[in-house]
Amino acid sequence: MAEAGERRSNCAIAGTLDILGDRWSLLIVRDLLFQGDLRYGDFMSAGEVIPTNTLADRLRRLESSGIVERSAYQQNPPRYFYRLTPKGRELGPVLRAMATWGMRHLQGTRSLLSD
Amino acid sequence: MAEAGERRSNCAIAGTLDILGDRWSLLIVRDLLFQGDLRYGDFMSAGEVIPTNTLADRLRRLESSGIVERSAYQQNPPRYFYRLTPKGRELGPVLRAMATWGMRHLQGTRSLLSD
Repeated sequence: MAEAGERRSNCAIAGTLDILGDRWSLLIVRDLLFQGDLRYGDFMSAGEVIPTNTLADRLRRLESSGIVERSAYQQNPPRYFYRLTPKGRELGPVLRAMATWGMRHLQGTRSLLSD
Repeated sequence: MAEAGERRSNCAIAGTLDILGDRWSLLIVRDLLFQGDLRYGDFMSAGEVIPTNTLADRLRRLESSGIVERSAYQQNPPRYFYRLTPKGRELGPVLRAMATWGMRHLQGTRSLLSD
């Protein structure tokens, strides 16, 4: 994945994938979209069991891209919760399109959106 | 990326990302959706300049996932063209949602869809 500012082309799809083109980033966005504010450990309870170093890396990238913002809820030691920015919430249609495609074409999958 | 049959969870979004969660696969789908049947070398002319070993790997994965199919247009040596299956064409809404988000939030990007 590219850091913010490194883009392969001026294509809007390629630019989106420069930020979000991996197996985990959009699952973090999914959890925040469906569950609201989350603490670091909350992400670990998702069914996909994200590795902790991957989670830390993706949260940092999503924050630097303006998709996620964090706020401290405790000092000494500092602890944060994470939430989507308006830019991040606007990824909802991407997730809905993926959920629709997955449910239609990947046997045995389901969508939180259809519960 | 997972091979077909390896899924992290029963979530339809996670299942979609198991197949398509990387920086390149959806750009191959984009090229096939906008340009129709393509030969191997045609993919190399896209603005993002996909490395040839990455292209070969992704085409193989997309074919094994039933998103792309290939047909020989020449024997000795065999040469193929690639096209989307109906399952692959139904990724259109995912690409459109990414294009909309990218154009809105990534400065300087544009969409083939809006030409």
